[in-house]
Parts: sequence; C-alpha cells; structure tokens
Amino acid sequence: MKKVGILGGGQLGRMLLQEAANYPVETWVMENDPTCPAAHLCHHFVTGNIRSFDDVYQFGKQLDAITIEIESVNVDALEQLEKEGVKVIPKPSALRTIKNKITQKEFYQANGIPTAAFVTVANKEALKSHLEFLPAAQKLGEGGYDGKGVQLLHSFEEFELAFDAPSVLEKKVAIEKEIAVLVAINNKGEQAIYPPVEMVFDPNLNLLDYQIAPADLEDKTLWRVEAIALKLVKALESPGLFAIELFIDKDGEVLVNEAAPRVHNSGHHTIEAHSSSQYDMLWRILLDFPLGSTTALLPSSLVNLIGEPGYSGDVNYEGLEEVLNMEDVYVHLYGKKQTKPGRKMGHVTVLGKDRHDLVRKAHQIKRILKVKS
Amino acid sequence: MKKVGILGGGQLGRMLLQEAANYPVETWVMENDPTCPAAHLCHHFVTGNIRSFDDVYQFGKQLDAITIEIESVNVDALEQLEKEGVKVIPKPSALRTIKNKITQKEFYQANGIPTAAFVTVANKEALKSHLEFLPAAQKLGEGGYDGKGVQLLHSFEEFELAFDAPSVLEKKVAIEKEIAVLVAINNKGEQAIYPPVEMVFDPNLNLLDYQIAPADLEDKTLWRVEAIALKLVKALESPGLFAIELFIDKDGEVLVNEAAPRVHNSGHHTIEAHSSSQYDMLWRILLDFPLGSTTALLPSSLVNLIGEPGYSGDVNYEGLEEVLNMEDVYVHLYGKKQTKPGRKMGHVTVLGKDRHDLVRKAHQIKRILKVKS
Repeated sequence: MKKVGILGGGQLGRMLLQEAANYPVETWVMENDPTCPAAHLCHHFVTGNIRSFDDVYQFGKQLDAITIEIESVNVDALEQLEKEGVKVIPKPSALRTIKNKITQKEFYQANGIPTAAFVTVANKEALKSHLEFLPAAQKLGEGGYDGKGVQLLHSFEEFELAFDAPSVLEKKVAIEKEIAVLVAINNKGEQAIYPPVEMVFDPNLNLLDYQIAPADLEDKTLWRVEAIALKLVKALESPGLFAIELFIDKDGEVLVNEAAPRVHNSGHHTIEAHSSSQYDMLWRILLDFPLGSTTALLPSSLVNLIGEPGYSGDVNYEGLEEVLNMEDVYVHLYGKKQTKPGRKMGHVTVLGKDRHDLVRKAHQIKRILKVKS
Repeated sequence: MKKVGILGGGQLGRMLLQEAANYPVETWVMENDPTCPAAHLCHHFVTGNIRSFDDVYQFGKQLDAITIEIESVNVDALEQLEKEGVKVIPKPSALRTIKNKITQKEFYQANGIPTAAFVTVANKEALKSHLEFLPAAQKLGEGGYDGKGVQLLHSFEEFELAFDAPSVLEKKVAIEKEIAVLVAINNKGEQAIYPPVEMVFDPNLNLLDYQIAPADLEDKTLWRVEAIALKLVKALESPGLFAIELFIDKDGEVLVNEAAPRVHNSGHHTIEAHSSSQYDMLWRILLDFPLGSTTALLPSSLVNLIGEPGYSGDVNYEGLEEVLNMEDVYVHLYGKKQTKPGRKMGHVTVLGKDRHDLVRKAHQIKRILKVKS
C-alpha cells in the first residue's frame, strides 16, 4: 500500500480520511493538536508544526506522496521532499504562487487570467498613494484564512482599519454573483471540472451563508468560467485538486477572486451530490488512479455550521435533532469539542431536484440549527 | 460526546466508523488484530478477544453504548454491562436468540414467523433419524459465518460431509428468489424499513454473486416480506439495525432464512443509494437521534470482491483501474493486506436508473476486477 501524508488535521483532512478508507492506502497526518478533527482517522498521527522545515521534512521523507489541507505549510521542506522523489501534490511551486495573495495576483496578471484591478502595497503608509483605488479590498499577502486577512476599505476615513503589512489592494468589484469551481488535474495532465456552485455570503461575518449547486449561469458565462478555471490550473503546472472562486460582475464579466490548491469548503456538497467527491478525486490523483466522474447526481444546497457570535466553550448543537429529521439532508459535524464565534464546526448538505426547495431547506436549517456552547 | 464501542474490527466496523465521523461521538473498537480494517479509524483501539468475558466487560464498562459488527461475541459480558447501565444495541437477549441457529429457528417457530421446516440434531449420528428430511441444509448452531457452517445434504451418500455438532437440519426450499431487507428500530420502538434487495448466489462458493436493489417483487409479496420482517424484529424486543434474509419459494411463499442483529453485507449499497445508509442509521439509534430516511435515491447493483480461489498472500486488485474508470461505480476496498480464497476484500456499488444497465455493469465488474496475490 502507498504511504500518503496530509499536512493539517482539520475538517478537510477528516473528510479526506473518511474517503481514504475506500482505497488501498496507508495514511499519515501531521498537526500540532493531537485532538484535531482528523487525528483519529489515519493510520499514523504525528504531532508536529506544519510550518516548521524540520517537522515537515521528517514527516514527509518516509512517504510516497504528500498533500495539504491548508496552505500555511513549510514550502521549503516540500521542495526538498520533491527533489528527493516524494510525490508532492500540489507541487510546491504552485503552492508558493497561491499561498501569498501578492504572488497569486501577479500570477493572474502574468498569465492573462482576468481578475480585479489591483496594486500591491508594502505597508499601511504605502496605501496613501492609492486612495484613488478606494473602495477596495485589502488582502494580506500571507496568513489570511476563512475571511480573516481581508479588509474592505471604502474611503480614507477607514484608513485606521487597514493592515500594516505587505498586501494587495484590490478594486471593489460590483458583484452580481460569487461562484466557485473545482478542477482536478492528474499526473498525466488529464483534467476534470465540476459544475460551478453559487455562493451567497453574509456581509457581516464575510462567511458563506449558503451555497447552491449548480450555479445558475447563462451558457456563455458558464463556458467562460470553465475556460478561465482550466487556464488558471494549467498555468500552475501542477497535478492536484484546485478550487477557484470567481466573481461575475454587474456587466457579466468573469473575474477570478482567488484559488486554493486543495480540497475546499465550496466542494463539500460533492460528497453526496457527485459520484466522485472532491475527496475521492484527490485520492485518485494521489494514488495514480483514473480521474472520477464530475457529473452531479442531483442539485444541492449547503449550509455551513458556524460558531454563533457570543458563544465560546464546549459545543452544543441546538436544533440538531430537528435537522436530522428532515428528508434528503446530510449532516456533517467536524468533531471539534470547542466552539467559538465564526469557527467552522460542520456543514449540512441538502439534495433535491427543486431549486426553490433547496433554498427553502437551506434557510430552514440556518434558522433551526445553531452552534452554541 | 458520547462514548460508543464496537465489538469487532472488520469491514462492517470500518464502514461504521467512516460514517461516525459525521456525528458527535467518541469511538472505541476491540478486536484481537491491531491491523484489522477498523483499527485506525476509531479514537481508541483496544486489542482484545471479543469472545472473552473479561475483555468485553473491561472494554464496555467505560462506554455509554456498545454495539457489534459480528455475532460471535461474549453475550454474558454484554448482559452484565446492560445490567450496569451501558446501552447495549442490539440487546444481549436478541443477540443470544440469533447467534445460535437452533434458538433462532425455535424463535421463528414460537413467534409464528414463516421459515423452512426443520429439525434440530445434537450430532452427526442423530441425523440418521431424519433421512426423510433430505435434501436439506445442515446449519451449525454456533460458529457459522460467511457461508461457512452450512452444508447441503442431498442424500444419504453425502452423510460423511455432515457436521458432527448441534445443528439445524432445514428442509431444502425450492427457491425462486433470495432477498434481504434491513429494518431499523430505535429506543422508542419507532421503525424504518429499507426496500428489499435481491441476491444472486454463486452455487459453488455459497457466496453472493451480485445483488440488485430494489428487489423485483409483486406488491403482495413485498407487503408480506415487510410484514414478516417487522414482526420478526418486533418479537426480538430490541433496538438496533437488523438484516433479514428471506426466500421466496416457487409457490410464492415467503420464508425467513436467517437474521443478523447488526449492519450487514446486504446493506452496503445503502451508502450511496440511500440518504441514510445502514451505518448512518445505526449511529442514529446508538446516539438517540431520529431515524433516517430509507427512501432510495436510485436503484443499485452490488458486487462483492472476494479473494479468488488459488491466490493467497499480499493482495493485488487486478483490473482496479478499469473499474475506477467506469461511470456511476463506487469502489470500497477494506484495507486487508492479505487475500485468501473466499475472503471478503471489498465491494463495488453501481447506481443507475436502468436495471439492465445495473446488471450489465455488475457482470462487467465481476469479469474485470479480480482479487489475486
């Protein structure tokens, strides 16, 4: 059996490991917290710092292949492992391009991939030369995650809110729709693309409100989304499973927001809605098996279960019974013992043919199921 | 989080644990082999003998609830645990009735549950008084499993093949169809029944050839199957997930073949074909959540991957790539490193609307995918 390791032990690792049990593979996970969501679902758990060269290198050199479930890992160590013959998916070069928002945006620019106009700034002071750019989103080069590290700046009055670090200042897009698309690419360069999903955000938390799949797009927009996503992934020159988030603006233009070189929150619905989920697909790539099918069995909606504001401590899922009683509803809890405001604690997928019913159930679930302490 | 243990660490335990990761539950497994299929997917693996009173008792007394994935466990210890307040599902009394084929048949008789005519015999010698019963199936009271412990006796000439142990001699049924049905019953006595599946057996190995769901039954036969299965499960007076195997004979009579008080090989298709799989359903019962829906999303066929005759040793899945390339096909391998003839190594589920296509793909998979060494 091939030995495959995952850097990071959060919910994405957990769901990867649920799927790994269908394949002939021996699994490793490294994470600093031995009670993390993925720790008990692998053959070998290693307590370690995924940002440390030594930890990642020692962890990886015993493996046939290694992947990530979070970008904030030590890329130097992955490069060394790649040199020594470990299969690293995604390739460290692609990961390096993506994990810093500045290099990511420069990569889009260099490869003719449409994205919102931007300038890069070294610190807060440097923002002052670009006030004509407001309203804009300031995105930290390194360390942003789950809506953190992004700050909307509407006018000079909000200057005090700005990050004082290398960052991207991105012109605010007049967003019509936010969508995401998953692309798989294997070692032979074969690709498979999932139908785009549509995301509705909560403007307060800057977190996903609910998601619906497939996205309701005009044909020409769909083709453009697919063409851009494929172009982006091919330009990264790396096998892997990639999630591309895009905006459709009020003029119908398609712009890449950002990309992730890994399984992604926007792909949870693929567990039930697709014959090959994003997790299944990544194992196929890691183990050199044929790509799976990206055809949807049914449309779906998806609600993220997020720690309620004002509650921290031992988690209590208020309304869980009621949601478990609903038809065609799939609850996934991530096994985190502690909740805090905004923490991703689980998700719920709804399958069904009727789009109105999918949206109605998503709203119902959001109303009923609350992550409290 | 509730603490729940599973006695046995085979593939059924493995699939239970894949599903457990969606629920707030801390999992334990006991099995004598620390490399068994389920060992690495639980929070706490305990090496121990599931037939030993002390091992089962020590394992269970730290838990909120305990279940089984195989019948051959120490029932005395489970009874003691039940007395001490551990939730044991299925109840030890139901397990005791079912795990011995003699008491199981007597239970059917006592409760008016139709089953093939039988006599019980204490040993090989005692068979001689029942030669008028041949052709018959002799079933060992204890220890039969996976087609072992069952011997067809056609005539006196085959007497030498007979088991020399307490057993049931069951009159051969003129079988038209073999079907299986899963029934869930929770602590409140609420029930849910899955659509019956139809099984086609290989007469040589006495192992499942392929399975198709739903079974093609006339309405009145379907109602009779459901009524008998529910009557049987209610008479056991135990919450749990039960699999009932039945014969439809050439006259259209419905007869119970045998029952299992646990998740079962005949329910693997529920992972993809149902919104609540048999594994999901058992967690709902164990954790006192509402029962799931037993509605099928799509019809399915299922092929068991069995170690080929003549091959023992490190497993090699010949044709795996080709099957992974097929549409609407779901491969589950059980992570067993060693194959031997007849060993259950995995299964493949096919989803689809067209019954002919389901059967065609099942045959194709059986032809392509071979478990060798």
